[in-house]
Amino acid sequence: MRVCVFDDQRLGALAGDGTVVDLTDLVSEHTPADDRMNALISDWTALKSAAAERVAAGGGTPEDQVTLRAPQPRPRNLFAAPVNYHKHQQEMGGENGVYADRKILTAEVRKGFLKAVTSIVGPDGAIELPWEDRRFDHEAEIGVIIGKTASRVSAEDALDYVFGYTPLLDITLRGEEDRSFRKSFDTFTPLGPYIVTADDVPDPENLDFWLTVDGEERQRSNTSYLIYGIAKLIEVYSEVMTLQPGDVIATGTPEGVGQILPGETVVLTIPEIGELTMPVVARA
Amino acid sequence: MRVCVFDDQRLGALAGDGTVVDLTDLVSEHTPADDRMNALISDWTALKSAAAERVAAGGGTPEDQVTLRAPQPRPRNLFAAPVNYHKHQQEMGGENGVYADRKILTAEVRKGFLKAVTSIVGPDGAIELPWEDRRFDHEAEIGVIIGKTASRVSAEDALDYVFGYTPLLDITLRGEEDRSFRKSFDTFTPLGPYIVTADDVPDPENLDFWLTVDGEERQRSNTSYLIYGIAKLIEVYSEVMTLQPGDVIATGTPEGVGQILPGETVVLTIPEIGELTMPVVARA
Repeated sequence: MRVCVFDDQRLGALAGDGTVVDLTDLVSEHTPADDRMNALISDWTALKSAAAERVAAGGGTPEDQVTLRAPQPRPRNLFAAPVNYHKHQQEMGGENGVYADRKILTAEVRKGFLKAVTSIVGPDGAIELPWEDRRFDHEAEIGVIIGKTASRVSAEDALDYVFGYTPLLDITLRGEEDRSFRKSFDTFTPLGPYIVTADDVPDPENLDFWLTVDGEERQRSNTSYLIYGIAKLIEVYSEVMTLQPGDVIATGTPEGVGQILPGETVVLTIPEIGELTMPVVARA
Repeated sequence: MRVCVFDDQRLGALAGDGTVVDLTDLVSEHTPADDRMNALISDWTALKSAAAERVAAGGGTPEDQVTLRAPQPRPRNLFAAPVNYHKHQQEMGGENGVYADRKILTAEVRKGFLKAVTSIVGPDGAIELPWEDRRFDHEAEIGVIIGKTASRVSAEDALDYVFGYTPLLDITLRGEEDRSFRKSFDTFTPLGPYIVTADDVPDPENLDFWLTVDGEERQRSNTSYLIYGIAKLIEVYSEVMTLQPGDVIATGTPEGVGQILPGETVVLTIPEIGELTMPVVARA
């Protein structure tokens, strides 16, 4: 199933007839608007069949007549894997790398970091670059949405704790600031348009994906090249932190990262999960 | 005023007669329990006089008959300043420093990082150390609680955006993992017991504070030694991220950090703000 948040923070899902069916009333009317996806995920076992019936029935609003928002506007935590593809490690630390002067350590050593949850933006928004004199890069990633409270989960069991997957961009300032600062600017985590539930993604560790800037391909890889695969990331993070339903994990970016500029359009395509199109603008 | 969260996530304040008066019904009954402090802070201008009347009337529950929880259980973001006192920079990078092999950069360069909001624990809990073979340190800090949405606020105006202040410990794993990972373990951000509202803290940039372990003094400083003061931190963070009511900023720790071990008790004292006592245990 492809679930989403649309219009005035309503919960929805994409039906077989191409319409977006409304699921908002499946969660309590008292749930704060930006917590509705958390409520749906927390209670998914009980709500799944009702949601599936509506998706089968269709008859919602045509997709092009709704505004798709970020499908998860308020995770408790937004975890991210640092340097989690070998070829990205090479490009960052190599002779011509952005950080050629230092040793680039991968997720095997650095493990993970946090992004501000307020950096999330949906396909209805834009990537806003705040400064003209600094370099900001695109990073194409798969986003994992946690489905159940996860504490000390083994990699073997970890995928049972996933609610779904969504396209995710980890926009990044290059420089000497702390990593989590450089990646936490408002609009620096575009998400969406849909979260595809785990039952519709048979092998998340073998997903092709690519990214274009103004139609030119810049990144192309497959999640099978991840250093720490999705299951391993959940094992490592849940060993030290209790993951909550609705938490987001940005799994890391492959080689090909590069600067983006106002006026350009970034498109991230993951055939089995969706396509996220984001314009880049200068902050007003 | 000294506001708190107590018992079953109820909102309270300390009255003049030493009792904790209940403020829970000042916020909507539909507010999720862990969002009540966010609701109180967001609507503080309207709710302040009603809260003050109850504090003046007293007649609540004696403080020793309630369980004080973390006074802010669910900020959207938990920001933190890296290396924000010069003497702490010297101890970390100096000859005998934990990171003697590298240049220690302060908040002036590194700016800030994020901690997992799930690392918050109250005075009712304990600091749980997960591994026996690694070093975990105490870091005594002042926590700032943001009161109003803050975007691109100047240092001059910044303190107008503060709701209040609370004792905060930034418990830290030493090692090669990313900074935000090393500080985000469950229970690694003890907070409380009270948030003292800003009107009761005339000069937050001149607060004495000290930390003991089993009664032995380990850290002592004053916020006037901060490299980036509280107002400057708000300016820097709000330049790139929109701060939300209820967000927490850990302002950085002075010299004297050191290892803690299961069985010890850490006490952070900030005379004008409060005293936070936390036992240290090995994770079960």
